[in-house]
Amino acid sequence: MTQDPSGTPMPDMQATPDRREIAIDRVGVREVVYPIRLRTREGGEQGSVANVSMYVALPHTQKGTHMSRFIEVLEAHACEPITPEMFPGIARAIRDRLNAKEAHIEASFTYFMKKKAPVTGIESLMDYEVTFACTANGEDDFIMTVAAPATSLCPCSKEISAYGAHNQRCEITASVRFEGTMWIEDLVEICERASSLEVFALLKRPDEKYVTEHAYDNPKFVEDIVRDLAISLNDDARVTWYAISSENFESIHSHNAYAQLERNKRG
Amino acid sequence: MTQDPSGTPMPDMQATPDRREIAIDRVGVREVVYPIRLRTREGGEQGSVANVSMYVALPHTQKGTHMSRFIEVLEAHACEPITPEMFPGIARAIRDRLNAKEAHIEASFTYFMKKKAPVTGIESLMDYEVTFACTANGEDDFIMTVAAPATSLCPCSKEISAYGAHNQRCEITASVRFEGTMWIEDLVEICERASSLEVFALLKRPDEKYVTEHAYDNPKFVEDIVRDLAISLNDDARVTWYAISSENFESIHSHNAYAQLERNKRG
Amino acid sequence: MTQDPSGTPMPDMQATPDRREIAIDRVGVREVVYPIRLRTREGGEQGSVANVSMYVALPHTQKGTHMSRFIEVLEAHACEPITPEMFPGIARAIRDRLNAKEAHIEASFTYFMKKKAPVTGIESLMDYEVTFACTANGEDDFIMTVAAPATSLCPCSKEISAYGAHNQRCEITASVRFEGTMWIEDLVEICERASSLEVFALLKRPDEKYVTEHAYDNPKFVEDIVRDLAISLNDDARVTWYAISSENFESIHSHNAYAQLERNKRG
Amino acid sequence: MTQDPSGTPMPDMQATPDRREIAIDRVGVREVVYPIRLRTREGGEQGSVANVSMYVALPHTQKGTHMSRFIEVLEAHACEPITPEMFPGIARAIRDRLNAKEAHIEASFTYFMKKKAPVTGIESLMDYEVTFACTANGEDDFIMTVAAPATSLCPCSKEISAYGAHNQRCEITASVRFEGTMWIEDLVEICERASSLEVFALLKRPDEKYVTEHAYDNPKFVEDIVRDLAISLNDDARVTWYAISSENFESIHSHNAYAQLERNKRG
Repeated sequence: MTQDPSGTPMPDMQATPDRREIAIDRVGVREVVYPIRLRTREGGEQGSVANVSMYVALPHTQKGTHMSRFIEVLEAHACEPITPEMFPGIARAIRDRLNAKEAHIEASFTYFMKKKAPVTGIESLMDYEVTFACTANGEDDFIMTVAAPATSLCPCSKEISAYGAHNQRCEITASVRFEGTMWIEDLVEICERASSLEVFALLKRPDEKYVTEHAYDNPKFVEDIVRDLAISLNDDARVTWYAISSENFESIHSHNAYAQLERNKRG
Repeated sequence: MTQDPSGTPMPDMQATPDRREIAIDRVGVREVVYPIRLRTREGGEQGSVANVSMYVALPHTQKGTHMSRFIEVLEAHACEPITPEMFPGIARAIRDRLNAKEAHIEASFTYFMKKKAPVTGIESLMDYEVTFACTANGEDDFIMTVAAPATSLCPCSKEISAYGAHNQRCEITASVRFEGTMWIEDLVEICERASSLEVFALLKRPDEKYVTEHAYDNPKFVEDIVRDLAISLNDDARVTWYAISSENFESIHSHNAYAQLERNKRG
Repeated sequence: MTQDPSGTPMPDMQATPDRREIAIDRVGVREVVYPIRLRTREGGEQGSVANVSMYVALPHTQKGTHMSRFIEVLEAHACEPITPEMFPGIARAIRDRLNAKEAHIEASFTYFMKKKAPVTGIESLMDYEVTFACTANGEDDFIMTVAAPATSLCPCSKEISAYGAHNQRCEITASVRFEGTMWIEDLVEICERASSLEVFALLKRPDEKYVTEHAYDNPKFVEDIVRDLAISLNDDARVTWYAISSENFESIHSHNAYAQLERNKRG
Repeated sequence: MTQDPSGTPMPDMQATPDRREIAIDRVGVREVVYPIRLRTREGGEQGSVANVSMYVALPHTQKGTHMSRFIEVLEAHACEPITPEMFPGIARAIRDRLNAKEAHIEASFTYFMKKKAPVTGIESLMDYEVTFACTANGEDDFIMTVAAPATSLCPCSKEISAYGAHNQRCEITASVRFEGTMWIEDLVEICERASSLEVFALLKRPDEKYVTEHAYDNPKFVEDIVRDLAISLNDDARVTWYAISSENFESIHSHNAYAQLERNKRG
């Protein structure tokens, strides 16, 4: 039993029995902001800042969990660069440290990829929001999610108009379960290829001419984006399940067009 | 076929056939901001501003849905004050107007309830975030969600400290499927009773003394809040399914404590 | 002196003298969510939900302000539909109720305007974010701010490309001090006219053809939008001061283009 | 003049003259997400992710600025760890690269500090939001802002109640202009000392007893926090100007208490 500084034993309220007979699916901590380092596909590493949630399942017999232990596990794993493949081990460490049957960790962070402009080849960094989520409950269930900004150009607007076509930024997201090795970079590139046009942080004029014409040559409804993305993920043997969406921030409306699709390839 | 102003027929790109053989779970519009009027439990009505999403399922044979029709349905229903019971009818109207097998509508809005301060009885308005979500697919599936701010006071901090106890604002959410009549007000009150203390917009000093002492007399972990809320919903014969959570914005940390629980009473 | 329910006098901590000799510019309440009713230009009224902040200046001699009185003032004014012209009166009421030399109120809310599609004339509601801010300190200083979504089409992209032009949603904001009567509707229309194209909630195909071609015929840099808006406000005799901006959510980048400009016409 | 890939010269629209005679205060890019490295007070360094805005003043004679050059400057400076003292040099580089009279850069990022729990001494990382803003216009004007979460405990609630006192998380912000060397860590510590209690990511039970009692022994209104912070900054000879605030997320209300104060010590 913990003692206070004067030596008085301090009660452990959380460990007392509970008689309400109600198990809790998930209890833990949210909005924990923590540094994270990631290994990149090219063999390097990069630092980022993660927003972390960690939960355990609480049996009906126990009054509470020990919230401070979640942070202790995070401290213990923060020293090494992380790849998607390492997350199930972290989830199991939480489960063990908290004496739970099931544990869950989610970490969302910005990830940078260097891209070359399509004509000038000038390099710049693009930022993507990535989430790793893992549940350890006997089987490890790991899901990687990326959100990639892109351009969509409306096929209807192009078809019916004498010139021009409305286009806009969209956000394409893909969550996948997979086998073997899949890098963040792999999934981002799959998402970007489903759009009318990938976007860049830095474009010079010859690049801007190229991307303008390329988007016009490649019109896509929000429905086309998720379907073309689904075809890529159907064809990728690593992927066993996916949930995908595109949200188009319509330039001619103040609301957004949206499509989503989920498929279990094992189902 | 639609004609342009000069009389030229305009092609309907969305209605063209699609050969990719990929059905889409949900396609539609998001972030549509629209006025809504609600009927209150006391027999009055109040206006609010809703953030609306509307989707349909798209068969694999059709290239696209007609986004403008969602807005037309909304326009047609905006003239009357809405109760939870009316939402399935709106979802069915979307399904019919878009020729879909399944349609979904979600509307989130601020809802006000008049509350009396516990000692002085002085009245003020409290605001709650409410969401109505309905899927029409043969059976109508309606879910009402409320988010109620409240106070939580830590039992461990109270027990181990010579005086004082850390407390903080928390947000309690409850999503329910139910039979018969359940008002927003009913579900908010159920949520608030599960906390250490309900909160008020306006308290005079005698009220502040009361609420301070009342919270200290009623300590609750985040686990206690969801369990006590589960007991109330288990005992409420109208409720057939619920998903509940509490997020406590810990005053001694910069992260939050969180617990969640889902139960199908029919399961 | 306030008494508690047993008749014991309760001390008024806030009214005790303070010896630190530090006056406070603004002290009060934020994130107060409250219903608001607005009078429209056409002579009707509409309800909305406001996010309200209220502050007073606190002299160096006083320990604290009485936060509950802000809410009491709000309760007293919530019963009537408000126009911009009425806000100085509310600010003065706060100043008097709190015995302050200076009082400030800000209220941000969604405001709806009915718009006709440009070809079919079909009607729908567009939503705008509006803020009324007023400081009462002897002279009443009132500022009205509107944020209007619109389309911008890039002149450079149009000029250098064989076909097409990137375009995107932008948000144009204008804050004005004015004399006489200026409706929310007036300022929104001034903002929209400075864009490549105003946006609509509901467009049928003939409308979509029109807006696509109209935007292509009317390319504007973010710099052009704020300059054309500045010219309109320079020419409007009611306006005595303005601060304007446009933020363009570039469809070819994941970052935004932005321009801002402030001018005191009396200066 | 830039040429397209076929050798055709491409017009520079931005460089064309403008006849509207309206200068623009700030034009540039926002929401640029970029990696940043910071030098720490202890002599180490840490990586983070910055949200960057960069602007220049545009003379009335010029149609537009060259947005891509902002990103080029950022690329050129991203290779070295940054301290507050280096920001004026970056602002001047933007001004020179864009041929402007005045340039402005702002970068907001999460910064971590290692803290020891008050009794057990166990270490954990706390996260703070930091902003560096610099305007180069002949004189360099640099402002450092930190936002520190903390606890506030209500003196009125403590005084009038038989036991307990409502307390809550608050966010204390301080923006300073200074001379000489001031580390992020210095300003964070000054902010935290003005609260009822600093917060920690990791506390064991003896720590929780300590912080609970310490906050109860140290009650502060939102007014007290900004006044005590003002006294510290008045006494700090490095600080020449400050703007400070505290926002208390009241545990007994759903709205926040707020105080702010600005002072030019040179004024």
